[in-house]
Amino acid sequence: MKNFLWLTLFCATTLTSQQTDEKQIRAIYDMALTEGKAYDWLNYLSNQIGGRLSGSVQAQQAVDYTRTQLDSMGLDRVWLQPVMVPKWVRGTPEFAYIETRPGITTNVPITALGGSVATPSSGIKANVVEVNGIEDLELLGQEKIKGKIVFFNRPMDPTLINTFQSYSGCVDQRYSGAAEAAKYGALGVIVRSMNLRLDDYPHTGSMGYGDTPVNQRIPAAAISTNGAELLSTTLQLNPEVTFYFKQNCKQYEDVESYNVIAEIRGTTYPSEIMVVGGHLDSWDLGDGSHDDGAGVVQSMDVLRLIKASGYKPQRTLRVVLFMNEENGLRGGNRYAEVARQKNENHVFALESDAGGFTPRGFSFDCDDANWTMVSKWKTLFEPYLIHQFVRGGSGADIGPLKDQGLLLAGLRPDSQRYFDHHHAANDTFEHVNKRELELGAATMASLVYLIDKYGVVPQQKIKG
Amino acid sequence: MKNFLWLTLFCATTLTSQQTDEKQIRAIYDMALTEGKAYDWLNYLSNQIGGRLSGSVQAQQAVDYTRTQLDSMGLDRVWLQPVMVPKWVRGTPEFAYIETRPGITTNVPITALGGSVATPSSGIKANVVEVNGIEDLELLGQEKIKGKIVFFNRPMDPTLINTFQSYSGCVDQRYSGAAEAAKYGALGVIVRSMNLRLDDYPHTGSMGYGDTPVNQRIPAAAISTNGAELLSTTLQLNPEVTFYFKQNCKQYEDVESYNVIAEIRGTTYPSEIMVVGGHLDSWDLGDGSHDDGAGVVQSMDVLRLIKASGYKPQRTLRVVLFMNEENGLRGGNRYAEVARQKNENHVFALESDAGGFTPRGFSFDCDDANWTMVSKWKTLFEPYLIHQFVRGGSGADIGPLKDQGLLLAGLRPDSQRYFDHHHAANDTFEHVNKRELELGAATMASLVYLIDKYGVVPQQKIKG
Repeated sequence: MKNFLWLTLFCATTLTSQQTDEKQIRAIYDMALTEGKAYDWLNYLSNQIGGRLSGSVQAQQAVDYTRTQLDSMGLDRVWLQPVMVPKWVRGTPEFAYIETRPGITTNVPITALGGSVATPSSGIKANVVEVNGIEDLELLGQEKIKGKIVFFNRPMDPTLINTFQSYSGCVDQRYSGAAEAAKYGALGVIVRSMNLRLDDYPHTGSMGYGDTPVNQRIPAAAISTNGAELLSTTLQLNPEVTFYFKQNCKQYEDVESYNVIAEIRGTTYPSEIMVVGGHLDSWDLGDGSHDDGAGVVQSMDVLRLIKASGYKPQRTLRVVLFMNEENGLRGGNRYAEVARQKNENHVFALESDAGGFTPRGFSFDCDDANWTMVSKWKTLFEPYLIHQFVRGGSGADIGPLKDQGLLLAGLRPDSQRYFDHHHAANDTFEHVNKRELELGAATMASLVYLIDKYGVVPQQKIKG
Repeated sequence: MKNFLWLTLFCATTLTSQQTDEKQIRAIYDMALTEGKAYDWLNYLSNQIGGRLSGSVQAQQAVDYTRTQLDSMGLDRVWLQPVMVPKWVRGTPEFAYIETRPGITTNVPITALGGSVATPSSGIKANVVEVNGIEDLELLGQEKIKGKIVFFNRPMDPTLINTFQSYSGCVDQRYSGAAEAAKYGALGVIVRSMNLRLDDYPHTGSMGYGDTPVNQRIPAAAISTNGAELLSTTLQLNPEVTFYFKQNCKQYEDVESYNVIAEIRGTTYPSEIMVVGGHLDSWDLGDGSHDDGAGVVQSMDVLRLIKASGYKPQRTLRVVLFMNEENGLRGGNRYAEVARQKNENHVFALESDAGGFTPRGFSFDCDDANWTMVSKWKTLFEPYLIHQFVRGGSGADIGPLKDQGLLLAGLRPDSQRYFDHHHAANDTFEHVNKRELELGAATMASLVYLIDKYGVVPQQKIKG
């Protein structure tokens, strides 16, 4: 009988606790869907400011705007964290054509890759060698590459359901293609855009020269998927066609910029820090609505939703709007560095940097004990059609915190449309749906609530 | 030892069977994503034909086009099933304004509801009484309604995660508002569009007069959500404002149209029929890409994918492109009627009529035994991020088959954006994503494969 009583009491307590959680999460979703602020903020970031490349006037405007908005929210502290960022400038619009016979040309849409050097002012014109990836370079050798433009044309694999996996399978061409092709004497590099659709938008993105000496760096540009198909078909008909491209982008000295940070101080464990964030910088072609305006405004709304719901976090809840994810990750690295210097105790970090689409779940980068804990919360999310709890991966900006042994997570929205817009001129506000954006913010806020309420299982720090 | 051997053999068999299923489903998805036909078909239906209201030239063109395409697929049989359908015609564009003072007017976007009568040729101008639903009419009574325009302004509930539930909570205003308001002497009815966004698109949809005598029928139109907000705010400031609207839509005599049907004959149980379908008709404002061009082309692609994958269905697999779902359901009713007349044995029917968005799962309308069976297949769909198996609901067109005791199912795509486009001028091709559409077709084909392979548990016929 005693046991039975105990069981009854236990069940009652458990039920109450679960009911409290259900109620709190319902309140968060209701607020997000009826009085969310994320969409209005995104409207301003996208339509009043626009693309926010690190070091640009727009990036600074975004710092000022989000700081002002956070200041108005009655949080415990709002501040800017200085960080030096690279400043790369696209210059005048790029220009390219395929020349099938002397004077017979077809223009194709290209965009310089972020970090690329310019072409000579008269452009580059050369024969083209098409490859299916970096590994083809060695097979072809210097003889077939020297003096030519290398055309990396491996498409994203359409059969992968998670389009981020398709992206991972191609992006080495964009990031390292120029550095690798230069070793074989290529004059320049053209990369098929990381896009699953056939369209006319070239998609930019970061590239690096590694240890290639400055005088051996060759220019690199992305070509639209339709342009890539045309170039490939043309080459099959006539391997002797030439390609011309011209770009006058430039890398300047680093400039000072900022991570924008705000926090609600924890009532019980103020030294335990939970971070939610996205990155404030974007590429310059569109207005960066999905990448990562969405993550920025969702993260800001997490704090607003938690506060407006009347929940008082036991732990310190901090929003970090990271600068320079796209071409340097300086903001993420700087934030982690300062945290280490100050001996801050980060227990949790959650990033939204996969677009403002319908949220499907989370990825968790954590040990077994924490995975067991978070897995139990899955049922709390099912009424909101959040079904996907997967292990591995979180977000680029919070990655540098990993060695501090915290629980890392990433919001996982539906990925089907993401690469239609990613880093291209059509990453714009009208492609973000208000409800989908708000559901993402509510999903993040609900996880933050649960983490705060139940704490995390201490994990081993990876180093220092 | 004997038991152990038996268990081992059993497990081996089970594993092999599951592996076969996994392989077959993977093949279906791969084909859909690399060589799907659905998007091309939809392009034709949407951009070469356009809106396909029952009885229109475009509806007939859609019958001809889909029949020709099915004819070219090498199926066992393709035919047209005649059905008489209503022919309602919108006429010249509707026109409406709010008049705050004599001569001071603001135009607002409206669209006649399908089936509505016209206004007098000079339009209707009257004071407005705003209500929050049909139940308000009785409270107000004839005194406050007679001689006025009733403005039904209950919005869709934004806090429901499944937007079809929000729609269900409002659509009685559109369907029955005019018939109910007429009882209290209203002159006409304006209904807030069934749309969760604030924008300028009025959304049409079917309405009915029930047993209202012909001479007492009043015209009904939908107003855009922005228009509804404006009208409501204006009424709050001045309850004496007048509203003017004019529409010259007309109901003609029924005309002959067709369900388009094609089948692959079953190898082992040809008399057991599995149906996949969508509806060929659409509203006239947009091109009906999501509602229900998507369902039509996905259903057609199910047969193509099954055939191309080399799988030979044991049961007869039939695609039915139903006519007149939007304003009569004549196609669905006719199909079920003929099936009964011919004593056909339908074991399964699956409809796609919820938009061409990322598939999230299925709804199943079936008994416990079949629910247990299909629930076991959930893990087979999880690699494709199909997580939602719910009970209840399938599709309007296949509903009339229900009394034949078959397993009914509906494809459940992500619903967040659906009502942004539903029945409005922006239900157009560019809002359908190719991959999302293809994933839906593959998801349907995979379920058809499993149903065919494992059969269904016989259910009790409801009647007849």
